[in-house]
Amino acid sequence: MQQRALATRERLLRAAAEIFAANGYAGTSLTEIHERAGVTKGAIYFHYPNKESVAEAIVERQLERWPALVKRFCGEESDPVVVVVALTFAITRAFRDEPVMRAGARLALDRNVGAWEAAFTQVLQPAEKAGELAEGVTAEEAARVVVSSFFGVFQVSDTLGRADTEERLREMWRVVLFGIQAEPSPRATVRRAEALALT
Amino acid sequence: MQQRALATRERLLRAAAEIFAANGYAGTSLTEIHERAGVTKGAIYFHYPNKESVAEAIVERQLERWPALVKRFCGEESDPVVVVVALTFAITRAFRDEPVMRAGARLALDRNVGAWEAAFTQVLQPAEKAGELAEGVTAEEAARVVVSSFFGVFQVSDTLGRADTEERLREMWRVVLFGIQAEPSPRATVRRAEALALT
Repeated sequence: MQQRALATRERLLRAAAEIFAANGYAGTSLTEIHERAGVTKGAIYFHYPNKESVAEAIVERQLERWPALVKRFCGEESDPVVVVVALTFAITRAFRDEPVMRAGARLALDRNVGAWEAAFTQVLQPAEKAGELAEGVTAEEAARVVVSSFFGVFQVSDTLGRADTEERLREMWRVVLFGIQAEPSPRATVRRAEALALT
Repeated sequence: MQQRALATRERLLRAAAEIFAANGYAGTSLTEIHERAGVTKGAIYFHYPNKESVAEAIVERQLERWPALVKRFCGEESDPVVVVVALTFAITRAFRDEPVMRAGARLALDRNVGAWEAAFTQVLQPAEKAGELAEGVTAEEAARVVVSSFFGVFQVSDTLGRADTEERLREMWRVVLFGIQAEPSPRATVRRAEALALT
Protein backbone atom coordinates (compact mmCIF):
# COMPACT_ATOMS: atom_id res chain seq x y z
CA MET A 1 0.00 0.00 0.00
CA GLN A 2 1.24 3.50 -0.78
CA GLN A 3 2.48 5.81 1.94
CA ARG A 4 -0.49 8.11 1.56
CA ALA A 5 -3.05 5.30 1.64
CA LEU A 6 -1.40 3.95 4.80
CA ALA A 7 -1.57 7.36 6.47
CA THR A 8 -5.25 7.68 5.54
CA ARG A 9 -5.99 4.25 6.98
CA GLU A 10 -4.27 5.16 10.26
CA ARG A 11 -6.26 8.37 10.46
CA LEU A 12 -9.48 6.42 9.85
CA LEU A 13 -8.71 3.78 12.47
CA ARG A 14 -7.83 6.38 15.06
CA ALA A 15 -10.94 8.47 14.42
CA ALA A 16 -13.14 5.37 14.47
CA ALA A 17 -11.51 4.17 17.69
CA GLU A 18 -12.16 7.48 19.43
CA ILE A 19 -15.86 7.34 18.56
CA PHE A 20 -16.26 3.61 19.30
CA ALA A 21 -14.47 4.00 22.65
CA ALA A 22 -16.82 6.81 23.64
CA ASN A 23 -20.15 5.68 22.18
CA GLY A 24 -19.86 1.93 21.59
CA TYR A 25 -20.55 0.05 18.39
CA ALA A 26 -24.29 0.76 18.10
CA GLY A 27 -23.81 4.45 18.83
CA THR A 28 -21.35 5.02 15.97
CA SER A 29 -21.99 5.64 12.24
CA LEU A 30 -19.65 5.53 9.23
CA THR A 31 -20.57 9.15 8.50
CA GLU A 32 -19.30 10.28 11.91
CA ILE A 33 -16.10 8.36 11.34
CA HIS A 34 -15.30 9.94 7.99
CA GLU A 35 -16.22 13.38 9.31
CA ARG A 36 -13.98 13.04 12.34
CA ALA A 37 -11.13 11.58 10.25
CA GLY A 38 -11.50 14.32 7.66
CA VAL A 39 -11.29 11.88 4.76
CA THR A 40 -13.68 11.49 1.85
CA LYS A 41 -16.42 8.87 1.89
CA GLY A 42 -14.66 7.29 -1.09
CA ALA A 43 -11.48 6.80 0.91
CA ILE A 44 -13.30 5.14 3.81
CA TYR A 45 -15.12 2.74 1.48
CA PHE A 46 -11.80 1.93 -0.21
CA HIS A 47 -10.33 0.76 3.10
CA TYR A 48 -13.41 -0.47 4.95
CA PRO A 49 -16.63 -1.30 3.10
CA ASN A 50 -18.77 -1.04 6.27
CA LYS A 51 -18.79 -0.25 9.98
CA GLU A 52 -18.25 -3.90 10.88
CA SER A 53 -14.96 -4.04 8.97
CA VAL A 54 -13.58 -0.92 10.72
CA ALA A 55 -14.51 -2.39 14.10
CA GLU A 56 -12.92 -5.72 13.22
CA ALA A 57 -9.70 -3.98 12.12
CA ILE A 58 -9.53 -2.16 15.47
CA VAL A 59 -10.15 -5.34 17.45
CA GLU A 60 -7.43 -7.19 15.54
CA ARG A 61 -4.98 -4.32 15.89
CA GLN A 62 -5.60 -4.36 19.63
CA LEU A 63 -5.32 -8.13 20.09
CA GLU A 64 -2.21 -8.55 17.94
CA ARG A 65 -0.37 -5.97 20.04
CA TRP A 66 -0.03 -8.15 23.15
CA PRO A 67 1.89 -11.33 22.25
CA ALA A 68 5.07 -9.34 21.54
CA LEU A 69 4.72 -7.57 24.89
CA VAL A 70 4.21 -10.84 26.76
CA LYS A 71 7.30 -12.27 25.08
CA ARG A 72 9.43 -9.22 25.84
CA PHE A 73 8.42 -9.10 29.53
CA CYS A 74 9.07 -12.86 29.88
CA GLY A 75 12.52 -12.31 28.38
CA GLU A 76 13.39 -9.48 30.78
CA GLU A 77 11.98 -10.89 34.01
CA SER A 78 12.40 -14.34 35.53
CA ASP A 79 9.45 -14.23 37.96
CA PRO A 80 6.22 -15.11 36.06
CA VAL A 81 4.05 -13.41 38.69
CA VAL A 82 5.94 -10.13 38.19
CA VAL A 83 5.35 -10.53 34.43
CA VAL A 84 1.58 -10.87 34.90
CA VAL A 85 1.42 -7.87 37.23
CA ALA A 86 3.53 -5.83 34.79
CA LEU A 87 1.21 -6.77 31.93
CA THR A 88 -1.81 -5.43 33.82
CA PHE A 89 -0.04 -2.08 34.32
CA ALA A 90 1.04 -1.97 30.65
CA ILE A 91 -2.52 -2.74 29.49
CA THR A 92 -3.92 -0.08 31.83
CA ARG A 93 -1.58 2.54 30.37
CA ALA A 94 -2.35 1.48 26.79
CA PHE A 95 -6.09 1.75 27.49
CA ARG A 96 -5.57 5.18 29.01
CA ASP A 97 -3.36 6.59 26.25
CA GLU A 98 -4.41 4.85 23.04
CA PRO A 99 -7.96 5.05 21.68
CA VAL A 100 -7.41 2.02 19.42
CA MET A 101 -6.55 -0.17 22.43
CA ARG A 102 -9.47 1.15 24.48
CA ALA A 103 -11.96 0.77 21.62
CA GLY A 104 -10.68 -2.71 20.74
CA ALA A 105 -11.27 -3.91 24.27
CA ARG A 106 -14.72 -2.34 24.44
CA LEU A 107 -15.74 -3.80 21.06
CA ALA A 108 -14.65 -7.35 21.88
CA LEU A 109 -14.63 -7.78 25.64
CA ASP A 110 -15.28 -11.50 25.29
CA ARG A 111 -12.25 -12.07 23.05
CA ASN A 112 -10.14 -9.95 25.39
CA VAL A 113 -11.16 -11.94 28.44
CA GLY A 114 -10.49 -15.22 26.66
CA ALA A 115 -7.14 -14.06 25.29
CA TRP A 116 -5.92 -12.81 28.66
CA GLU A 117 -7.06 -15.87 30.60
CA ALA A 118 -5.11 -18.01 28.12
CA ALA A 119 -2.02 -15.75 28.10
CA PHE A 120 -1.81 -15.41 31.91
CA THR A 121 -2.28 -19.17 32.33
CA GLN A 122 0.63 -19.81 29.98
CA VAL A 123 2.86 -17.26 31.71
CA LEU A 124 2.06 -18.67 35.16
CA GLN A 125 2.50 -22.37 34.35
CA PRO A 126 6.26 -22.40 35.04
CA ALA A 127 5.57 -20.75 38.41
CA GLU A 128 3.02 -23.46 39.24
CA LYS A 129 5.54 -26.17 38.32
CA ALA A 130 8.28 -24.49 40.38
CA GLY A 131 6.00 -24.37 43.45
CA GLU A 132 5.93 -20.58 43.41
CA LEU A 133 2.13 -20.33 43.46
CA ALA A 134 0.13 -20.51 46.69
CA GLU A 135 -0.77 -24.00 47.82
CA GLY A 136 -3.74 -25.46 45.97
CA VAL A 137 -3.85 -22.67 43.36
CA THR A 138 -3.30 -23.66 39.73
CA ALA A 139 -2.00 -21.33 37.01
CA GLU A 140 -5.43 -21.43 35.38
CA GLU A 141 -7.31 -20.51 38.56
CA ALA A 142 -4.89 -17.70 39.29
CA ALA A 143 -5.29 -16.43 35.71
CA ARG A 144 -9.09 -16.45 35.96
CA VAL A 145 -9.14 -14.59 39.26
CA VAL A 146 -6.59 -12.05 38.00
CA VAL A 147 -8.54 -11.36 34.79
CA SER A 148 -11.86 -10.86 36.56
CA SER A 149 -10.35 -8.71 39.32
CA PHE A 150 -8.48 -6.67 36.72
CA PHE A 151 -11.57 -6.09 34.56
CA GLY A 152 -13.53 -5.26 37.72
CA VAL A 153 -11.03 -2.53 38.59
CA PHE A 154 -11.60 -1.00 35.15
CA GLN A 155 -15.34 -1.27 35.31
CA VAL A 156 -15.62 0.25 38.77
CA SER A 157 -13.13 3.02 38.04
CA ASP A 158 -14.90 3.81 34.73
CA THR A 159 -18.34 3.68 36.29
CA LEU A 160 -17.38 6.12 39.01
CA GLY A 161 -15.79 8.34 36.34
CA ARG A 162 -12.55 8.53 38.25
CA ALA A 163 -8.98 8.60 37.03
CA ASP A 164 -7.83 6.29 39.83
CA THR A 165 -7.47 3.07 37.82
CA GLU A 166 -3.75 2.65 38.56
CA GLU A 167 -4.19 3.30 42.26
CA ARG A 168 -7.03 0.76 42.42
CA LEU A 169 -4.91 -1.72 40.47
CA ARG A 170 -2.06 -1.39 43.00
CA GLU A 171 -4.54 -1.87 45.83
CA MET A 172 -6.00 -4.96 44.12
CA TRP A 173 -2.58 -6.54 43.68
CA ARG A 174 -1.57 -5.87 47.28
CA VAL A 175 -4.54 -8.03 48.32
CA VAL A 176 -4.69 -10.60 45.52
CA LEU A 177 -0.97 -11.50 45.54
CA PHE A 178 -1.37 -12.94 49.03
CA GLY A 179 -3.57 -15.65 47.53
CA ILE A 180 -1.38 -16.28 44.50
CA GLN A 181 2.26 -16.24 45.64
CA ALA A 182 3.62 -19.12 47.71
CA GLU A 183 5.78 -16.58 49.53
CA PRO A 184 3.81 -13.36 49.25
CA SER A 185 5.80 -10.16 48.70
CA PRO A 186 3.09 -7.87 47.28
CA ARG A 187 4.80 -4.52 47.64
CA ALA A 188 8.14 -5.63 46.17
CA THR A 189 6.35 -7.50 43.37
CA VAL A 190 4.25 -4.48 42.40
CA ARG A 191 7.32 -2.25 42.49
CA ARG A 192 9.30 -4.56 40.19
CA ALA A 193 6.30 -4.98 37.90
CA GLU A 194 5.71 -1.25 37.56
CA ALA A 195 9.37 -0.71 36.69
CA LEU A 196 9.15 -3.46 34.06
CA ALA A 197 5.92 -2.03 32.62
CA LEU A 198 7.64 1.31 32.07
CA THR A 199 10.49 -0.18 29.99
CA MET B 1 -53.29 2.19 47.15
CA GLN B 2 -55.92 -0.40 46.33
CA GLN B 3 -55.03 -4.07 46.09
CA ARG B 4 -55.60 -4.11 42.33
CA ALA B 5 -53.52 -1.01 41.70
CA LEU B 6 -50.69 -2.52 43.74
CA ALA B 7 -50.82 -5.73 41.72
CA THR B 8 -50.73 -3.76 38.47
CA ARG B 9 -47.73 -1.76 39.66
CA GLU B 10 -45.86 -4.95 40.55
CA ARG B 11 -46.62 -6.41 37.11
CA LEU B 12 -45.36 -3.24 35.48
CA LEU B 13 -42.14 -3.14 37.49
CA ARG B 14 -41.41 -6.76 36.78
CA ALA B 15 -42.06 -6.47 33.03
CA ALA B 16 -39.98 -3.29 32.85
CA ALA B 17 -37.16 -4.94 34.79
CA GLU B 18 -37.05 -7.90 32.42
CA ILE B 19 -36.69 -5.61 29.41
CA PHE B 20 -34.24 -3.20 31.07
CA ALA B 21 -32.08 -6.12 32.28
CA ALA B 22 -31.91 -7.54 28.76
CA ASN B 23 -31.72 -4.40 26.61
CA GLY B 24 -30.55 -1.60 28.89
CA TYR B 25 -32.17 1.79 29.38
CA ALA B 26 -31.73 3.17 25.85
CA GLY B 27 -32.98 -0.06 24.27
CA THR B 28 -36.32 -0.04 26.11
CA SER B 29 -39.56 1.83 25.32
CA LEU B 30 -42.68 2.45 27.41
CA THR B 31 -44.72 0.72 24.70
CA GLU B 32 -42.73 -2.50 25.07
CA ILE B 33 -43.19 -2.34 28.84
CA HIS B 34 -46.97 -2.00 28.72
CA GLU B 35 -47.21 -4.71 26.06
CA ARG B 36 -45.12 -7.17 28.07
CA ALA B 37 -46.98 -6.33 31.31
CA GLY B 38 -50.34 -6.68 29.58
CA VAL B 39 -51.69 -3.47 31.11
CA THR B 40 -53.29 -0.54 29.39
CA LYS B 41 -51.32 2.55 28.51
CA GLY B 42 -53.58 4.46 30.88
CA ALA B 43 -52.51 2.25 33.79
CA ILE B 44 -48.82 2.69 33.09
CA TYR B 45 -49.16 6.50 32.90
CA PHE B 46 -51.12 6.45 36.15
CA HIS B 47 -48.19 4.77 37.95
CA TYR B 48 -45.22 6.09 35.99
CA PRO B 49 -45.51 9.16 33.78
CA ASN B 50 -42.37 8.27 31.77
CA LYS B 51 -39.60 5.72 31.23
CA GLU B 52 -37.30 7.55 33.63
CA SER B 53 -39.75 7.14 36.51
CA VAL B 54 -40.09 3.36 35.95
CA ALA B 55 -36.31 3.01 35.89
CA GLU B 56 -35.94 5.09 39.05
CA ALA B 57 -38.56 2.95 40.83
CA ILE B 58 -36.62 -0.21 39.92
CA VAL B 59 -33.30 1.26 41.07
CA GLU B 60 -34.81 2.33 44.40
CA ARG B 61 -36.51 -1.02 44.90
CA GLN B 62 -33.18 -2.74 44.31
CA LEU B 63 -31.11 -0.46 46.55
CA GLU B 64 -33.58 -0.45 49.46
CA ARG B 65 -33.51 -4.23 49.59
CA TRP B 66 -29.99 -4.57 50.95
CA PRO B 67 -29.78 -2.72 54.30
CA ALA B 68 -32.18 -5.23 55.92
CA LEU B 69 -30.09 -8.12 54.59
CA VAL B 70 -26.86 -6.58 55.88
CA LYS B 71 -28.47 -6.09 59.29
CA ARG B 72 -29.82 -9.65 59.42
CA PHE B 73 -26.49 -11.24 58.43
CA CYS B 74 -24.63 -9.10 60.98
CA GLY B 75 -27.09 -10.29 63.63
CA GLU B 76 -26.63 -13.96 62.78
CA GLU B 77 -22.87 -14.07 62.27
CA SER B 78 -20.11 -12.65 64.44
CA ASP B 79 -17.30 -12.66 61.85
CA PRO B 80 -17.60 -9.53 59.65
CA VAL B 81 -15.58 -11.14 56.85
CA VAL B 82 -18.04 -14.04 56.68
CA VAL B 83 -20.87 -11.47 56.49
CA VAL B 84 -19.27 -9.74 53.50
CA VAL B 85 -18.65 -13.03 51.69
CA ALA B 86 -22.23 -14.13 52.42
CA LEU B 87 -23.57 -10.84 51.04
CA THR B 88 -21.77 -11.42 47.73
CA PHE B 89 -23.40 -14.86 47.41
CA ALA B 90 -26.83 -13.48 48.35
CA ILE B 91 -26.48 -10.65 45.79
CA THR B 92 -25.37 -13.13 43.12
CA ARG B 93 -28.45 -15.27 43.70
CA ALA B 94 -30.76 -12.24 43.73
CA PHE B 95 -29.28 -11.06 40.42
CA ARG B 96 -29.74 -14.53 38.96
CA ASP B 97 -33.31 -15.06 40.14
CA GLU B 98 -34.90 -11.61 40.28
CA PRO B 99 -35.19 -9.36 37.22
CA VAL B 100 -35.83 -6.27 39.36
CA MET B 101 -32.52 -6.78 41.20
CA ARG B 102 -30.61 -7.43 37.97
CA ALA B 103 -32.16 -4.47 36.15
CA GLY B 104 -31.63 -2.15 39.13
CA ALA B 105 -27.92 -2.94 39.17
CA ARG B 106 -27.58 -2.50 35.43
CA LEU B 107 -29.47 0.80 35.44
CA ALA B 108 -27.41 2.34 38.25
CA LEU B 109 -24.06 0.60 38.40
CA ASP B 110 -22.44 3.71 39.85
CA ARG B 111 -24.91 3.91 42.75
CA ASN B 112 -24.49 0.18 43.35
CA VAL B 113 -20.71 0.41 43.49
CA GLY B 114 -20.88 3.37 45.84
CA ALA B 115 -23.49 1.74 48.08
CA TRP B 116 -21.56 -1.52 48.37
CA GLU B 117 -18.22 0.11 49.01
CA ALA B 118 -19.84 2.04 51.85
CA ALA B 119 -21.75 -0.97 53.23
CA PHE B 120 -18.75 -3.35 53.14
CA THR B 121 -16.53 -0.71 54.76
CA GLN B 122 -19.00 -0.35 57.59
CA VAL B 123 -19.35 -4.11 58.08
CA LEU B 124 -15.56 -4.59 58.08
CA GLN B 125 -14.66 -1.77 60.45
CA PRO B 126 -15.09 -3.88 63.64
CA ALA B 127 -12.81 -6.53 62.04
CA GLU B 128 -10.17 -3.88 61.36
CA LYS B 129 -10.37 -2.65 64.97
CA ALA B 130 -10.15 -6.22 66.31
CA GLY B 131 -7.01 -6.89 64.25
CA GLU B 132 -8.79 -9.50 62.16
CA LEU B 133 -7.82 -7.93 58.83
CA ALA B 134 -4.48 -8.63 57.17
CA GLU B 135 -1.66 -6.35 58.28
CA GLY B 136 -1.72 -2.98 56.59
CA VAL B 137 -5.19 -3.47 55.06
CA THR B 138 -7.94 -1.07 56.14
CA ALA B 139 -11.66 -1.85 56.05
CA GLU B 140 -12.05 0.70 53.26
CA GLU B 141 -9.27 -0.80 51.10
CA ALA B 142 -10.64 -4.30 51.60
CA ALA B 143 -14.14 -3.08 50.67
CA ARG B 144 -12.87 -1.42 47.48
CA VAL B 145 -10.94 -4.51 46.36
CA VAL B 146 -13.88 -6.79 47.17
CA VAL B 147 -16.36 -4.63 45.23
CA SER B 148 -14.19 -4.42 42.12
CA SER B 149 -13.29 -8.12 42.17
CA PHE B 150 -16.94 -9.00 42.72
CA PHE B 151 -18.17 -6.83 39.85
CA GLY B 152 -15.36 -8.21 37.67
CA VAL B 153 -16.59 -11.76 38.30
CA PHE B 154 -20.03 -10.71 37.07
CA GLN B 155 -18.77 -8.88 34.06
CA VAL B 156 -16.47 -11.68 32.92
CA SER B 157 -19.04 -14.39 33.54
CA ASP B 158 -21.71 -12.36 31.72
CA THR B 159 -19.40 -11.49 28.85
CA LEU B 160 -18.51 -15.11 28.28
CA GLY B 161 -22.21 -15.99 28.47
CA ARG B 162 -21.59 -18.67 31.06
CA ALA B 163 -23.63 -19.68 34.07
CA ASP B 164 -20.51 -20.10 36.21
CA THR B 165 -20.81 -16.93 38.30
CA GLU B 166 -21.01 -18.75 41.64
CA GLU B 167 -18.06 -20.99 40.85
CA ARG B 168 -15.98 -17.96 39.82
CA LEU B 169 -17.06 -16.17 42.98
CA ARG B 170 -15.84 -19.09 45.15
CA GLU B 171 -12.56 -19.12 43.25
CA MET B 172 -12.17 -15.36 43.72
CA TRP B 173 -12.74 -15.59 47.46
CA ARG B 174 -10.29 -18.47 47.89
CA VAL B 175 -7.61 -16.13 46.51
CA VAL B 176 -8.73 -12.74 47.83
CA LEU B 177 -9.32 -13.85 51.44
CA PHE B 178 -5.59 -14.52 51.81
CA GLY B 179 -5.01 -10.81 51.41
CA ILE B 180 -7.86 -9.75 53.68
CA GLN B 181 -7.92 -12.06 56.69
CA ALA B 182 -5.21 -11.78 59.35
CA GLU B 183 -5.45 -15.55 59.77
CA PRO B 184 -6.65 -16.76 56.37
CA SER B 185 -9.13 -19.63 56.33
CA PRO B 186 -10.65 -19.21 52.87
CA ARG B 187 -12.39 -22.55 52.49
CA ALA B 188 -14.02 -22.55 55.93
CA THR B 189 -15.01 -18.89 55.52
CA VAL B 190 -16.65 -19.50 52.13
CA ARG B 191 -18.46 -22.56 53.52
CA ARG B 192 -19.87 -20.61 56.48
CA ALA B 193 -20.77 -17.69 54.22
CA GLU B 194 -22.64 -19.85 51.72
CA ALA B 195 -24.62 -21.46 54.53
CA LEU B 196 -25.49 -18.00 55.90
CA ALA B 197 -26.49 -16.74 52.44
CA LEU B 198 -28.99 -19.58 52.12
CA THR B 199 -30.82 -18.75 55.36
